[in-house]
Amino acid sequence: MPFALLLELLNYVGSAAFATAGALTASRKQMDPVGFILIAALTAFGGGSLRDVLLGRPVAWLGSPGPALMVAVVAIAVFFFAHRFERRTVPLLWADAVGMALFAVLGAEAAIGEGASPWAAILLGTITATFGGALRDVVCGEVPLILRKEIYATAAALGAALFVALHMAGVPRDAAVVAGMSAAFALRAAALWRGWSLPAYKARPGRDY
Amino acid sequence: MPFALLLELLNYVGSAAFATAGALTASRKQMDPVGFILIAALTAFGGGSLRDVLLGRPVAWLGSPGPALMVAVVAIAVFFFAHRFERRTVPLLWADAVGMALFAVLGAEAAIGEGASPWAAILLGTITATFGGALRDVVCGEVPLILRKEIYATAAALGAALFVALHMAGVPRDAAVVAGMSAAFALRAAALWRGWSLPAYKARPGRDY
Amino acid sequence: MPFALLLELLNYVGSAAFATAGALTASRKQMDPVGFILIAALTAFGGGSLRDVLLGRPVAWLGSPGPALMVAVVAIAVFFFAHRFERRTVPLLWADAVGMALFAVLGAEAAIGEGASPWAAILLGTITATFGGALRDVVCGEVPLILRKEIYATAAALGAALFVALHMAGVPRDAAVVAGMSAAFALRAAALWRGWSLPAYKARPGRDY
Repeated sequence: MPFALLLELLNYVGSAAFATAGALTASRKQMDPVGFILIAALTAFGGGSLRDVLLGRPVAWLGSPGPALMVAVVAIAVFFFAHRFERRTVPLLWADAVGMALFAVLGAEAAIGEGASPWAAILLGTITATFGGALRDVVCGEVPLILRKEIYATAAALGAALFVALHMAGVPRDAAVVAGMSAAFALRAAALWRGWSLPAYKARPGRDY
Repeated sequence: MPFALLLELLNYVGSAAFATAGALTASRKQMDPVGFILIAALTAFGGGSLRDVLLGRPVAWLGSPGPALMVAVVAIAVFFFAHRFERRTVPLLWADAVGMALFAVLGAEAAIGEGASPWAAILLGTITATFGGALRDVVCGEVPLILRKEIYATAAALGAALFVALHMAGVPRDAAVVAGMSAAFALRAAALWRGWSLPAYKARPGRDY
Repeated sequence: MPFALLLELLNYVGSAAFATAGALTASRKQMDPVGFILIAALTAFGGGSLRDVLLGRPVAWLGSPGPALMVAVVAIAVFFFAHRFERRTVPLLWADAVGMALFAVLGAEAAIGEGASPWAAILLGTITATFGGALRDVVCGEVPLILRKEIYATAAALGAALFVALHMAGVPRDAAVVAGMSAAFALRAAALWRGWSLPAYKARPGRDY
């Protein structure tokens, strides 16, 4: 089944990118190898685990050895070769965007499959794509992802919303997945390429409420 | 069934207050609209989600579109009108107290319904009422709610404990709910009105242990 | 059944040590008594709750009144007598090491019992032993446990890995538990005694990636 295989492949690409981003954060914090593995796992599995837990089902990474082993290998590789990554964060950002787009759409689909309402499905897809990175930043004491000015959660929300809308309009599943992923990836790519950001709320100075 | 309807209404009032508090935190952090929605949802759904997850059941907000839609509407409204809220935090604090009192009692009741022990039920009620705000503060990099000197978690614990005690004494459910909510609300109101706080632990200067 | 009784006893020793460590953190933050109880419960129950939630089963502390009551008693005792603990953190560290070693092995065993793969079981055992302390630090705004230079998560990972390896080699359960716990405790003890730490990643100065 080629499409399912493609999604499986993209899942590994995205998970590896998330694990690499987690391990690079661990390198900035000068952790030991076990710390690299824990933070890589937190980043790669955090969003999907929260999705499964909120849906009341056991988490996906427990059953099969592949993903947990891959995360450990990635973390150890980054521990020894992080210096080489310094000039290569751009490919990492694109691989991360693939993971974000995929996880947003598959998160929304999982929620619909468990009977969630459309609004809740969009919210859950966005959470699946962003919570791993948010957890990583909180545990490592960095400025959380969601506070940064670039478009990230917005791209995930767009992809999840488009998938849900097409699904409700009766579009076949594979086409809806491709459309949702493409929209999320395109918006994120535009943000990376052009430095786009959404208009943010401007606080007036000197007020505290 | 008028009492159930009243609780449903209070649930919306409290959730809207929690969502507003979350969106106002997002405004202080100058987030974009999607950030407003995510932080509002985290604050409004965080405590109840943790309650449901700890009890091993799917979370309540997934099934019905009402709450998730309301949170999104509140967050967007705050994005455009947050300036108007500056002088109106006092009504917000009172609506928040309604939500806290309700969630503490209903959290304890849900725990008892799943066979929890009385102590665990009081703890779970307190968590339900306070965890959303704690998550919001941690993700936004603010001083967590629980570190502030005012009475908040204590009022939730009092309401949950009174409800559990009355329930075990055989008091009818509706009366126990009203008594627990009233106690939690009254203590929180006194704290807001009089600036009450519990005696806190005083560290001796110059020690680090 | 003496071995089960011994594990139950060690479980209380370890939980009490975790609760004490949580309450001492609350004392550093000068919280009120309810804050002491909440942070003590977070530290003592956080790791095991995450384990149960990830495995898709209700959390262990809900059903029986013993652990929740013990945590509350410990927290209140620390509130009144924390000054006496100042010179007694060394016994606390050893009791904490007992809890860490036990929770790492029992967490890995619970994961295997639910059909997790070996790698996932090691990861879950490590999480069970360390997540309560990480949550405590994040909620209290301290430098998270995992960022500190001493061996802690590594000892938990070693114990979980040894238990999983022995279990897969067909070693009887009680012997595998004793071996895993002993390895985790011994490594942690060596780290406490000798100030050992793993080689950490050295960032080159002046780079930001």
